[in-house]
Amino acid sequence: MRTLKLTLSYDGADFVGWQRQANGRSVQAELEEALSQIDKRDVPVVGAGRTDSGVHALGQVASALIESAIPVASLRQALNTSLPADVRIVSIEETPGFFNARHHARSKTYRYRIFNGDTISPFDRRYAWHVPYPLDLSAMQTAGQEFIGRHDFAAFQASGSRVLTTGRTITASDWVDDAFAEGGGAPGEILHLCGRVLVYQIAGTGFLRHMVRTIVGTLVEVGAGRRAAGSMGLLLASKDRALSGPTAPPYGLYLVQVDYDTAGADLTREPPKVEEEEDGHDILQ
Amino acid sequence: MRTLKLTLSYDGADFVGWQRQANGRSVQAELEEALSQIDKRDVPVVGAGRTDSGVHALGQVASALIESAIPVASLRQALNTSLPADVRIVSIEETPGFFNARHHARSKTYRYRIFNGDTISPFDRRYAWHVPYPLDLSAMQTAGQEFIGRHDFAAFQASGSRVLTTGRTITASDWVDDAFAEGGGAPGEILHLCGRVLVYQIAGTGFLRHMVRTIVGTLVEVGAGRRAAGSMGLLLASKDRALSGPTAPPYGLYLVQVDYDTAGADLTREPPKVEEEEDGHDILQ
Repeated sequence: MRTLKLTLSYDGADFVGWQRQANGRSVQAELEEALSQIDKRDVPVVGAGRTDSGVHALGQVASALIESAIPVASLRQALNTSLPADVRIVSIEETPGFFNARHHARSKTYRYRIFNGDTISPFDRRYAWHVPYPLDLSAMQTAGQEFIGRHDFAAFQASGSRVLTTGRTITASDWVDDAFAEGGGAPGEILHLCGRVLVYQIAGTGFLRHMVRTIVGTLVEVGAGRRAAGSMGLLLASKDRALSGPTAPPYGLYLVQVDYDTAGADLTREPPKVEEEEDGHDILQ
Repeated sequence: MRTLKLTLSYDGADFVGWQRQANGRSVQAELEEALSQIDKRDVPVVGAGRTDSGVHALGQVASALIESAIPVASLRQALNTSLPADVRIVSIEETPGFFNARHHARSKTYRYRIFNGDTISPFDRRYAWHVPYPLDLSAMQTAGQEFIGRHDFAAFQASGSRVLTTGRTITASDWVDDAFAEGGGAPGEILHLCGRVLVYQIAGTGFLRHMVRTIVGTLVEVGAGRRAAGSMGLLLASKDRALSGPTAPPYGLYLVQVDYDTAGADLTREPPKVEEEEDGHDILQ
Protein backbone atom coordinates (compact mmCIF):
# COMPACT_ATOMS: atom_id res chain seq x y z
CA MET A 1 0.00 0.00 0.00
CA ARG A 2 1.15 3.54 -0.73
CA THR A 3 0.26 6.54 1.41
CA LEU A 4 -0.68 9.68 -0.54
CA LYS A 5 -0.94 13.32 0.46
CA LEU A 6 -3.35 15.08 -1.93
CA THR A 7 -3.71 18.87 -2.06
CA LEU A 8 -7.09 20.05 -3.41
CA SER A 9 -8.76 23.26 -4.47
CA TYR A 10 -12.53 23.47 -4.66
CA ASP A 11 -15.32 25.93 -5.22
CA GLY A 12 -17.63 25.20 -2.29
CA ALA A 13 -20.70 26.85 -3.84
CA ASP A 14 -22.33 23.64 -5.02
CA PHE A 15 -21.11 21.27 -2.28
CA VAL A 16 -22.73 20.37 1.05
CA GLY A 17 -19.18 20.66 2.40
CA TRP A 18 -16.09 18.48 2.64
CA GLN A 19 -17.65 15.63 4.57
CA ARG A 20 -19.67 12.84 3.00
CA GLN A 21 -23.35 13.14 3.87
CA ALA A 22 -26.47 11.13 3.16
CA ASN A 23 -27.79 13.79 0.78
CA GLY A 24 -26.00 16.24 -1.48
CA ARG A 25 -22.61 16.43 -3.16
CA SER A 26 -19.60 16.34 -0.82
CA VAL A 27 -15.97 16.85 -1.84
CA GLN A 28 -14.94 13.79 0.17
CA ALA A 29 -17.40 11.52 -1.67
CA GLU A 30 -16.33 12.88 -5.08
CA LEU A 31 -12.66 12.26 -4.24
CA GLU A 32 -13.30 8.81 -2.78
CA GLU A 33 -15.27 7.80 -5.87
CA ALA A 34 -12.55 9.04 -8.22
CA LEU A 35 -9.82 7.21 -6.23
CA SER A 36 -11.91 4.03 -5.93
CA GLN A 37 -12.39 3.93 -9.72
CA ILE A 38 -8.64 3.99 -10.22
CA ASP A 39 -7.76 1.61 -7.39
CA LYS A 40 -10.64 -0.81 -8.19
CA ARG A 41 -11.55 -0.93 -4.49
CA ASP A 42 -13.08 1.40 -1.90
CA VAL A 43 -10.55 4.09 -1.00
CA PRO A 44 -11.47 6.12 2.09
CA VAL A 45 -9.83 9.54 2.41
CA VAL A 46 -9.11 11.65 5.49
CA GLY A 47 -9.36 15.44 5.15
CA ALA A 48 -7.30 17.91 7.18
CA GLY A 49 -10.45 19.82 8.06
CA ARG A 50 -14.15 19.52 7.39
CA THR A 51 -15.18 22.66 5.56
CA ASP A 52 -18.88 23.56 5.76
CA SER A 53 -21.33 23.90 2.90
CA GLY A 54 -20.39 26.88 0.71
CA VAL A 55 -16.85 27.17 2.16
CA HIS A 56 -14.08 27.11 -0.45
CA ALA A 57 -10.59 25.61 -0.43
CA LEU A 58 -7.39 26.62 -2.16
CA GLY A 59 -5.25 24.05 -0.39
CA GLN A 60 -7.27 21.43 1.48
CA VAL A 61 -5.16 18.34 2.21
CA ALA A 62 -6.36 14.73 2.22
CA SER A 63 -4.59 11.45 2.87
CA ALA A 64 -5.39 8.09 1.33
CA LEU A 65 -3.90 4.61 0.98
CA ILE A 66 -3.87 3.09 -2.48
CA GLU A 67 -2.72 -0.23 -3.94
CA SER A 68 -2.20 0.95 -7.51
CA ALA A 69 1.40 1.57 -8.64
CA ILE A 70 0.32 4.48 -10.90
CA PRO A 71 2.88 7.36 -10.78
CA VAL A 72 1.61 10.42 -8.89
CA ALA A 73 1.68 12.68 -12.00
CA SER A 74 -0.51 10.24 -13.96
CA LEU A 75 -2.75 9.78 -10.95
CA ARG A 76 -3.25 13.54 -10.66
CA GLN A 77 -4.18 13.74 -14.34
CA ALA A 78 -6.55 10.74 -14.08
CA LEU A 79 -8.24 12.17 -10.99
CA ASN A 80 -8.69 15.60 -12.56
CA THR A 81 -10.23 13.96 -15.63
CA SER A 82 -12.64 11.98 -13.50
CA LEU A 83 -13.50 14.64 -10.87
CA PRO A 84 -16.15 17.34 -11.51
CA ALA A 85 -14.75 20.73 -12.59
CA ASP A 86 -15.46 22.39 -9.22
CA VAL A 87 -12.79 20.31 -7.49
CA ARG A 88 -9.21 20.02 -8.75
CA ILE A 89 -6.20 18.11 -7.46
CA VAL A 90 -3.40 20.66 -7.19
CA SER A 91 -0.67 18.18 -6.29
CA ILE A 92 -0.05 14.66 -5.01
CA GLU A 93 2.94 13.49 -2.97
CA GLU A 94 3.77 10.01 -1.81
CA THR A 95 4.46 10.02 1.93
CA PRO A 96 5.94 7.36 4.19
CA GLY A 97 3.85 5.11 6.39
CA PHE A 98 1.09 6.44 8.57
CA PHE A 99 0.76 10.00 7.32
CA ASN A 100 -2.70 11.23 8.29
CA ALA A 101 -3.94 14.56 6.89
CA ARG A 102 -5.99 15.26 10.00
CA HIS A 103 -3.83 14.03 12.87
CA HIS A 104 -0.52 15.33 11.57
CA ALA A 105 -1.78 18.83 10.63
CA ARG A 106 0.16 21.41 12.65
CA SER A 107 -1.29 24.67 11.35
CA LYS A 108 -4.08 25.86 9.10
CA THR A 109 -4.54 29.14 7.29
CA TYR A 110 -7.93 30.57 6.36
CA ARG A 111 -8.96 33.67 4.42
CA TYR A 112 -12.23 35.52 4.60
CA ARG A 113 -13.25 37.79 1.76
CA ILE A 114 -15.63 40.76 2.17
CA PHE A 115 -16.95 43.07 -0.51
CA ASN A 116 -17.42 46.41 1.19
CA GLY A 117 -19.49 48.73 -0.95
CA ASP A 118 -22.88 49.57 -2.30
CA THR A 119 -23.36 46.99 -5.05
CA ILE A 120 -21.54 43.66 -5.19
CA SER A 121 -20.45 42.37 -8.57
CA PRO A 122 -22.52 39.44 -9.85
CA PHE A 123 -19.22 37.55 -10.21
CA ASP A 124 -18.55 37.90 -6.48
CA ARG A 125 -21.92 36.74 -5.21
CA ARG A 126 -20.74 33.24 -4.27
CA TYR A 127 -17.20 34.29 -3.30
CA ALA A 128 -17.46 37.20 -0.86
CA TRP A 129 -19.70 38.50 1.92
CA HIS A 130 -21.40 41.74 0.90
CA VAL A 131 -21.16 44.35 3.65
CA PRO A 132 -22.69 47.57 2.26
CA TYR A 133 -22.07 49.92 5.22
CA PRO A 134 -18.73 51.69 5.92
CA LEU A 135 -16.09 49.72 7.85
CA ASP A 136 -13.14 51.06 9.84
CA LEU A 137 -10.42 48.66 8.69
CA SER A 138 -7.87 50.03 11.14
CA ALA A 139 -10.17 49.27 14.11
CA MET A 140 -10.75 45.78 12.70
CA GLN A 141 -7.00 45.21 12.43
CA THR A 142 -6.43 46.37 16.03
CA ALA A 143 -9.20 44.14 17.35
CA GLY A 144 -8.03 41.15 15.31
CA GLN A 145 -4.56 41.32 16.86
CA GLU A 146 -6.06 40.38 20.22
CA PHE A 147 -6.73 36.85 18.97
CA ILE A 148 -3.02 36.10 18.54
CA GLY A 149 -1.66 33.68 21.12
CA ARG A 150 -3.28 30.89 23.13
CA HIS A 151 -6.87 31.68 24.13
CA ASP A 152 -10.08 29.98 25.08
CA PHE A 153 -12.30 30.53 22.03
CA ALA A 154 -15.55 29.26 23.61
CA ALA A 155 -17.21 32.59 22.76
CA PHE A 156 -16.37 32.05 19.09
CA GLN A 157 -17.59 28.54 18.41
CA ALA A 158 -20.91 27.41 16.96
CA SER A 159 -23.54 27.30 19.66
CA GLY A 160 -24.31 23.76 20.72
CA SER A 161 -20.73 22.55 20.14
CA ARG A 162 -19.51 20.05 22.71
CA VAL A 163 -15.74 19.82 22.17
CA LEU A 164 -13.78 18.88 25.27
CA THR A 165 -11.44 21.84 25.19
CA THR A 166 -11.85 25.19 23.50
CA GLY A 167 -8.29 26.49 23.88
CA ARG A 168 -6.64 27.23 20.54
CA THR A 169 -3.45 28.97 19.44
CA ILE A 170 -3.62 31.67 16.78
CA THR A 171 -0.36 32.68 15.10
CA ALA A 172 -1.56 35.27 12.58
CA SER A 173 -4.66 37.45 12.34
CA ASP A 174 -4.55 40.25 9.79
CA TRP A 175 -6.64 42.23 7.38
CA VAL A 176 -4.50 42.15 4.27
CA ASP A 177 -4.63 43.92 0.94
CA ASP A 178 -4.88 41.78 -2.15
CA ALA A 179 -4.08 38.52 -0.38
CA PHE A 180 -5.54 36.74 -3.37
CA ALA A 181 -3.28 38.56 -5.79
CA GLU A 182 -0.30 36.47 -4.64
CA GLY A 183 -2.02 33.41 -5.99
CA GLY A 184 -3.24 35.30 -9.03
CA GLY A 185 -6.11 37.60 -8.23
CA ALA A 186 -9.40 36.95 -6.55
CA PRO A 187 -12.41 34.83 -7.39
CA GLY A 188 -15.19 36.73 -9.03
CA GLU A 189 -13.30 39.93 -8.59
CA ILE A 190 -14.07 41.25 -12.04
CA LEU A 191 -15.60 44.60 -11.41
CA HIS A 192 -15.80 46.54 -8.21
CA LEU A 193 -19.02 48.46 -8.25
CA CYS A 194 -18.12 51.40 -6.01
CA GLY A 195 -16.45 49.42 -3.29
CA ARG A 196 -13.40 47.55 -2.07
CA VAL A 197 -12.48 43.99 -1.23
CA LEU A 198 -11.26 43.30 2.31
CA VAL A 199 -9.41 40.08 3.04
CA TYR A 200 -8.85 38.69 6.51
CA GLN A 201 -6.19 36.03 7.00
CA ILE A 202 -5.92 33.91 10.12
CA ALA A 203 -3.57 31.03 10.93
CA GLY A 204 -3.48 28.77 13.92
CA THR A 205 -2.97 25.28 15.26
CA GLY A 206 -6.67 24.54 15.25
CA PHE A 207 -10.10 26.06 14.85
CA LEU A 208 -13.42 25.38 16.52
CA ARG A 209 -16.59 25.04 14.50
CA HIS A 210 -17.57 28.40 12.89
CA MET A 211 -14.65 30.04 14.71
CA VAL A 212 -13.27 32.01 11.76
CA ARG A 213 -16.75 33.05 10.64
CA THR A 214 -17.71 34.20 14.16
CA ILE A 215 -14.44 36.13 14.51
CA VAL A 216 -15.15 37.83 11.17
CA GLY A 217 -18.77 38.59 12.12
CA THR A 218 -17.52 40.14 15.37
CA LEU A 219 -14.71 42.12 13.70
CA VAL A 220 -17.23 43.54 11.21
CA GLU A 221 -19.23 44.84 14.17
CA VAL A 222 -16.02 46.50 15.37
CA GLY A 223 -15.54 47.99 11.88
CA ALA A 224 -19.09 49.29 11.91
CA GLY A 225 -18.49 51.02 15.26
CA ARG A 226 -20.90 48.77 17.17
CA ARG A 227 -18.10 47.32 19.36
CA ALA A 228 -14.89 48.81 20.72
CA ALA A 229 -11.64 47.67 19.04
CA GLY A 230 -10.25 46.88 22.49
CA SER A 231 -13.14 44.65 23.58
CA MET A 232 -11.95 41.30 22.21
CA GLY A 233 -10.04 40.35 25.37
CA LEU A 234 -13.17 40.64 27.52
CA LEU A 235 -15.16 38.75 24.93
CA LEU A 236 -12.64 35.87 24.98
CA ALA A 237 -12.72 35.91 28.77
CA SER A 238 -16.53 35.72 28.80
CA LYS A 239 -16.47 32.35 26.97
CA ASP A 240 -20.06 33.22 26.07
CA ARG A 241 -21.14 32.72 22.45
CA ALA A 242 -24.16 34.94 23.07
CA LEU A 243 -21.85 37.94 23.51
CA SER A 244 -19.90 37.65 20.24
CA GLY A 245 -21.07 38.75 16.79
CA PRO A 246 -23.03 36.94 14.10
CA THR A 247 -21.54 34.05 12.12
CA ALA A 248 -20.37 35.49 8.79
CA PRO A 249 -21.74 33.59 5.76
CA PRO A 250 -19.79 30.53 4.54
CA TYR A 251 -19.23 31.69 0.95
CA GLY A 252 -16.60 34.28 1.99
CA LEU A 253 -14.40 31.64 3.66
CA TYR A 254 -11.41 29.85 2.08
CA LEU A 255 -9.20 27.15 3.56
CA VAL A 256 -5.89 28.38 2.14
CA GLN A 257 -3.31 25.90 3.35
CA VAL A 258 -2.52 23.20 5.86
CA ASP A 259 0.99 22.88 7.24
CA TYR A 260 2.63 19.70 8.42
CA ASP A 261 5.74 19.07 10.39
CA THR A 262 6.27 15.53 9.26
CA ALA A 263 10.02 15.79 9.86
CA GLY A 264 9.41 15.42 13.58
CA ALA A 265 6.61 12.88 13.35
CA ASP A 266 7.15 9.13 13.37
CA LEU A 267 5.29 8.11 10.23
CA THR A 268 6.13 4.46 10.66
CA ARG A 269 3.60 4.20 13.49
CA GLU A 270 -0.06 5.04 13.69
CA PRO A 271 -0.47 8.63 14.97
CA PRO A 272 -1.86 9.20 18.47
CA LYS A 273 -5.60 9.89 18.39
CA VAL A 274 -6.30 13.59 18.76
CA GLU A 275 -8.71 14.53 21.45
CA GLU A 276 -10.78 17.00 19.51
CA GLU A 277 -11.49 18.01 16.02
CA GLU A 278 -10.25 21.19 14.45
CA ASP A 279 -11.77 23.37 11.78
CA GLY A 280 -14.82 24.02 13.70
CA HIS A 281 -16.06 20.45 13.77
CA ASP A 282 -16.93 18.78 16.97
CA ILE A 283 -15.87 15.15 17.28
CA LEU A 284 -18.69 14.51 19.75
CA GLN A 285 -21.39 15.55 17.32
CA MET B 1 -42.55 59.10 -20.15
CA ARG B 2 -38.85 59.10 -19.23
CA THR B 3 -36.15 57.41 -21.30
CA LEU B 4 -33.56 55.49 -19.29
CA LYS B 5 -30.11 54.18 -20.18
CA LEU B 6 -29.29 51.27 -17.86
CA THR B 7 -25.79 49.77 -17.61
CA LEU B 8 -25.75 46.16 -16.40
CA SER B 9 -23.24 43.55 -15.32
CA TYR B 10 -24.17 39.89 -15.30
CA ASP B 11 -22.70 36.46 -14.79
CA GLY B 12 -23.97 34.60 -17.84
CA ALA B 13 -23.38 31.11 -16.38
CA ASP B 14 -26.98 30.49 -15.40
CA PHE B 15 -28.73 32.47 -18.15
CA VAL B 16 -29.93 31.32 -21.58
CA GLY B 17 -28.53 34.65 -22.75
CA TRP B 18 -29.67 38.25 -22.92
CA GLN B 19 -32.75 37.70 -25.01
CA ARG B 20 -36.10 36.58 -23.64
CA GLN B 21 -36.88 33.01 -24.67
CA ALA B 22 -39.75 30.61 -24.18
CA ASN B 23 -37.71 28.46 -21.78
CA GLY B 24 -34.97 29.35 -19.35
CA ARG B 25 -33.84 32.47 -17.51
CA SER B 26 -32.91 35.44 -19.69
CA VAL B 27 -31.38 38.70 -18.49
CA GLN B 28 -33.90 40.69 -20.55
CA ALA B 29 -36.88 38.97 -18.91
CA GLU B 30 -35.43 39.47 -15.41
CA LEU B 31 -34.87 43.17 -16.09
CA GLU B 32 -38.30 43.65 -17.70
CA GLU B 33 -39.99 41.98 -14.74
CA ALA B 34 -38.10 44.13 -12.22
CA LEU B 35 -38.93 47.33 -14.13
CA SER B 36 -42.57 46.31 -14.64
CA GLN B 37 -43.00 45.76 -10.88
CA ILE B 38 -41.83 49.30 -10.22
CA ASP B 39 -43.70 50.96 -13.07
CA LYS B 40 -46.92 48.92 -12.50
CA ARG B 41 -47.12 48.23 -16.24
CA ASP B 42 -45.24 46.15 -18.82
CA VAL B 43 -41.87 47.77 -19.50
CA PRO B 44 -40.08 46.38 -22.56
CA VAL B 45 -36.31 46.93 -22.68
CA VAL B 46 -33.93 47.08 -25.65
CA GLY B 47 -30.41 45.70 -25.19
CA ALA B 48 -27.35 46.98 -27.04
CA GLY B 49 -26.44 43.43 -28.03
CA ARG B 50 -27.87 39.98 -27.53
CA THR B 51 -25.28 37.96 -25.64
CA ASP B 52 -25.53 34.19 -26.00
CA SER B 53 -26.06 31.65 -23.25
CA GLY B 54 -23.04 31.56 -20.92
CA VAL B 55 -21.63 34.89 -22.19
CA HIS B 56 -20.99 37.45 -19.44
CA ALA B 57 -21.36 41.23 -19.35
CA LEU B 58 -19.51 43.92 -17.43
CA GLY B 59 -21.23 46.80 -19.21
CA GLN B 60 -24.26 45.73 -21.23
CA VAL B 61 -26.53 48.70 -21.97
CA ALA B 62 -30.32 48.66 -22.15
CA SER B 63 -32.89 51.37 -22.83
CA ALA B 64 -36.40 51.57 -21.45
CA LEU B 65 -39.27 54.02 -21.15
CA ILE B 66 -40.89 54.39 -17.74
CA GLU B 67 -43.77 56.44 -16.34
CA SER B 68 -42.66 56.45 -12.70
CA ALA B 69 -41.04 59.66 -11.39
CA ILE B 70 -38.69 57.67 -9.10
CA PRO B 71 -35.17 59.24 -8.98
CA VAL B 72 -32.54 57.17 -10.83
CA ALA B 73 -30.52 56.43 -7.65
CA SER B 74 -33.59 55.02 -5.88
CA LEU B 75 -34.57 53.13 -9.02
CA ARG B 76 -31.12 51.53 -9.20
CA GLN B 77 -31.38 50.44 -5.57
CA ALA B 78 -34.93 49.13 -6.03
CA LEU B 79 -33.95 47.17 -9.15
CA ASN B 80 -30.88 45.64 -7.47
CA THR B 81 -33.06 44.57 -4.54
CA SER B 82 -35.57 42.96 -6.86
CA LEU B 83 -33.16 41.42 -9.43
CA PRO B 84 -31.43 38.06 -8.82
CA ALA B 85 -27.83 38.32 -7.58
CA ASP B 86 -26.30 37.27 -10.91
CA VAL B 87 -27.40 40.50 -12.59
CA ARG B 88 -26.65 43.96 -11.18
CA ILE B 89 -27.51 47.44 -12.38
CA VAL B 90 -24.21 49.35 -12.44
CA SER B 91 -25.73 52.73 -13.28
CA ILE B 92 -28.82 54.43 -14.65
CA GLU B 93 -28.95 57.70 -16.57
CA GLU B 94 -31.96 59.58 -17.81
CA THR B 95 -31.57 60.38 -21.51
CA PRO B 96 -33.54 62.67 -23.76
CA GLY B 97 -36.22 61.44 -26.15
CA PHE B 98 -35.68 58.49 -28.42
CA PHE B 99 -32.44 57.04 -27.06
CA ASN B 100 -32.27 53.41 -28.16
CA ALA B 101 -29.53 51.19 -26.71
CA ARG B 102 -29.37 49.14 -29.90
CA HIS B 103 -29.74 51.66 -32.69
CA HIS B 104 -27.56 54.38 -31.17
CA ALA B 105 -24.67 52.08 -30.20
CA ARG B 106 -21.52 53.20 -32.03
CA SER B 107 -18.92 50.79 -30.70
CA LYS B 108 -18.72 47.69 -28.55
CA THR B 109 -15.81 46.19 -26.64
CA TYR B 110 -15.51 42.50 -25.84
CA ARG B 111 -12.96 40.51 -23.85
CA TYR B 112 -12.18 36.85 -24.11
CA ARG B 113 -10.45 35.08 -21.25
CA ILE B 114 -8.31 31.94 -21.67
CA PHE B 115 -6.63 29.89 -18.99
CA ASN B 116 -3.51 28.48 -20.60
CA GLY B 117 -2.01 25.73 -18.49
CA ASP B 118 -2.32 22.21 -17.26
CA THR B 119 -5.05 22.45 -14.62
CA ILE B 120 -7.68 25.19 -14.51
CA SER B 121 -8.73 26.51 -11.11
CA PRO B 122 -12.20 25.37 -10.03
CA PHE B 123 -13.02 29.07 -9.59
CA ASP B 124 -12.32 29.73 -13.27
CA ARG B 125 -14.39 26.91 -14.73
CA ARG B 126 -17.32 29.13 -15.73
CA TYR B 127 -15.21 32.21 -16.51
CA ALA B 128 -12.39 31.16 -18.85
CA TRP B 129 -11.70 28.76 -21.68
CA HIS B 130 -9.18 26.12 -20.64
CA VAL B 131 -6.49 25.65 -23.31
CA PRO B 132 -3.95 23.16 -21.88
CA TYR B 133 -1.39 23.15 -24.73
CA PRO B 134 1.34 25.82 -25.21
CA LEU B 135 0.34 28.99 -27.07
CA ASP B 136 2.60 31.47 -28.88
CA LEU B 137 1.08 34.74 -27.69
CA SER B 138 3.26 36.84 -29.97
CA ALA B 139 1.98 34.98 -33.07
CA MET B 140 -1.59 35.42 -31.80
CA GLN B 141 -1.01 39.16 -31.36
CA THR B 142 0.44 39.49 -34.89
CA ALA B 143 -2.46 37.56 -36.42
CA GLY B 144 -5.06 39.51 -34.42
CA GLN B 145 -3.79 42.81 -35.80
CA GLU B 146 -4.98 41.80 -39.27
CA PHE B 147 -8.60 42.18 -38.16
CA ILE B 148 -8.20 45.92 -37.58
CA GLY B 149 -10.00 48.05 -40.17
CA ARG B 150 -13.03 47.42 -42.36
CA HIS B 151 -13.31 43.79 -43.51
CA ASP B 152 -15.85 41.28 -44.66
CA PHE B 153 -16.14 38.89 -41.70
CA ALA B 154 -18.25 36.23 -43.47
CA ALA B 155 -15.61 33.62 -42.60
CA PHE B 156 -16.05 34.47 -38.89
CA GLN B 157 -19.80 34.33 -38.40
CA ALA B 158 -21.94 31.47 -37.14
CA SER B 159 -22.70 29.08 -39.98
CA GLY B 160 -26.27 29.47 -41.18
CA SER B 161 -26.36 33.21 -40.47
CA ARG B 162 -28.25 35.24 -43.06
CA VAL B 163 -27.37 38.87 -42.34
CA LEU B 164 -27.53 41.12 -45.39
CA THR B 165 -24.00 42.46 -45.08
CA THR B 166 -21.02 41.00 -43.33
CA GLY B 167 -18.70 44.00 -43.47
CA ARG B 168 -17.65 45.24 -40.04
CA THR B 169 -15.09 47.73 -38.73
CA ILE B 170 -12.69 46.65 -36.00
CA THR B 171 -10.82 49.38 -34.13
CA ALA B 172 -8.83 47.36 -31.59
CA SER B 173 -7.69 43.75 -31.43
CA ASP B 174 -5.10 42.90 -28.78
CA TRP B 175 -3.97 40.23 -26.41
CA VAL B 176 -3.55 42.19 -23.19
CA ASP B 177 -2.07 41.40 -19.82
CA ASP B 178 -4.33 41.73 -16.82
CA ALA B 179 -7.10 43.55 -18.67
CA PHE B 180 -9.40 42.58 -15.83
CA ALA B 181 -7.10 44.10 -13.24
CA GLU B 182 -8.16 47.60 -14.34
CA GLY B 183 -11.65 46.87 -13.16
CA GLY B 184 -10.34 45.01 -10.13
CA GLY B 185 -8.97 41.61 -11.00
CA ALA B 186 -10.49 38.75 -12.87
CA PRO B 187 -13.45 36.50 -12.24
CA GLY B 188 -12.56 33.24 -10.64
CA GLU B 189 -8.89 34.06 -10.86
CA ILE B 190 -8.04 32.81 -7.43
CA LEU B 191 -5.29 30.36 -8.02
CA HIS B 192 -3.34 29.69 -11.14
CA LEU B 193 -2.47 26.05 -11.17
CA CYS B 194 0.70 26.08 -13.27
CA GLY B 195 -0.56 28.35 -15.98
CA ARG B 196 -1.37 31.87 -17.11
CA VAL B 197 -4.46 33.84 -18.03
CA LEU B 198 -4.58 35.33 -21.53
CA VAL B 199 -7.06 38.09 -22.27
CA TYR B 200 -8.05 39.18 -25.77
CA GLN B 201 -9.76 42.53 -26.21
CA ILE B 202 -11.56 43.53 -29.39
CA ALA B 203 -13.54 46.68 -30.18
CA GLY B 204 -15.54 47.55 -33.24
CA THR B 205 -18.66 49.15 -34.65
CA GLY B 206 -20.47 45.84 -34.84
CA PHE B 207 -20.06 42.10 -34.57
CA LEU B 208 -21.63 39.19 -36.41
CA ARG B 209 -23.02 36.23 -34.54
CA HIS B 210 -20.18 34.22 -32.88
CA MET B 211 -17.66 36.55 -34.52
CA VAL B 212 -15.50 37.17 -31.44
CA ARG B 213 -15.60 33.51 -30.45
CA THR B 214 -14.64 32.37 -33.97
CA ILE B 215 -11.80 34.90 -34.10
CA VAL B 216 -10.54 33.60 -30.74
CA GLY B 217 -10.87 29.96 -31.85
CA THR B 218 -8.86 30.79 -34.96
CA LEU B 219 -6.21 32.80 -33.10
CA VAL B 220 -5.73 29.90 -30.68
CA GLU B 221 -4.97 27.70 -33.71
CA VAL B 222 -2.35 30.30 -34.69
CA GLY B 223 -0.95 30.19 -31.15
CA ALA B 224 -0.78 26.40 -31.29
CA GLY B 225 1.19 26.57 -34.55
CA ARG B 226 -1.58 25.02 -36.64
CA ARG B 227 -2.03 28.20 -38.74
CA ALA B 228 0.43 30.87 -39.90
CA ALA B 229 0.24 34.21 -38.11
CA GLY B 230 0.07 35.91 -41.52
CA SER B 231 -2.88 33.89 -42.80
CA MET B 232 -5.77 35.98 -41.48
CA GLY B 233 -5.96 38.19 -44.60
CA LEU B 234 -6.51 35.21 -46.87
CA LEU B 235 -9.04 33.79 -44.44
CA LEU B 236 -11.01 37.06 -44.46
CA ALA B 237 -10.83 37.10 -48.27
CA SER B 238 -12.16 33.54 -48.48
CA LYS B 239 -15.44 34.55 -46.78
CA ASP B 240 -15.73 30.84 -46.01
CA ARG B 241 -16.69 29.83 -42.45
CA ALA B 242 -15.46 26.30 -43.15
CA LEU B 243 -11.88 27.61 -43.39
CA SER B 244 -11.72 29.43 -40.04
CA GLY B 245 -11.19 27.86 -36.61
CA PRO B 246 -13.64 26.47 -34.07
CA THR B 247 -16.03 28.68 -32.12
CA ALA B 248 -14.45 29.26 -28.70
CA PRO B 249 -16.81 28.42 -25.80
CA PRO B 250 -19.20 31.15 -24.59
CA TYR B 251 -18.10 31.23 -20.94
CA GLY B 252 -14.79 32.97 -21.77
CA LEU B 253 -16.57 35.93 -23.42
CA TYR B 254 -17.45 39.24 -21.75
CA LEU B 255 -19.29 42.24 -23.22
CA VAL B 256 -17.19 44.96 -21.59
CA GLN B 257 -18.72 48.21 -22.76
CA VAL B 258 -20.94 49.86 -25.33
CA ASP B 259 -20.13 53.35 -26.53
CA TYR B 260 -22.62 55.93 -27.74
CA ASP B 261 -22.18 59.16 -29.61
CA THR B 262 -25.45 60.67 -28.58
CA ALA B 263 -24.06 64.18 -28.98
CA GLY B 264 -24.44 63.89 -32.73
CA ALA B 265 -27.70 61.96 -32.72
CA ASP B 266 -31.11 63.60 -32.83
CA LEU B 267 -32.78 62.02 -29.82
CA THR B 268 -36.00 63.95 -30.32
CA ARG B 269 -36.86 61.72 -33.28
CA GLU B 270 -37.15 57.99 -33.63
CA PRO B 271 -33.80 56.57 -34.81
CA PRO B 272 -33.50 55.20 -38.35
CA LYS B 273 -33.97 51.43 -38.43
CA VAL B 274 -30.64 49.67 -38.72
CA GLU B 275 -30.34 47.18 -41.52
CA GLU B 276 -28.68 44.41 -39.58
CA GLU B 277 -28.07 43.34 -36.08
CA GLU B 278 -24.75 43.47 -34.36
CA ASP B 279 -23.28 41.26 -31.67
CA GLY B 280 -23.51 38.22 -33.76
CA HIS B 281 -27.26 38.11 -34.02
CA ASP B 282 -28.99 37.92 -37.31
CA ILE B 283 -32.12 40.03 -37.66
CA LEU B 284 -33.45 37.65 -40.27
CA GLN B 285 -33.39 34.65 -37.93
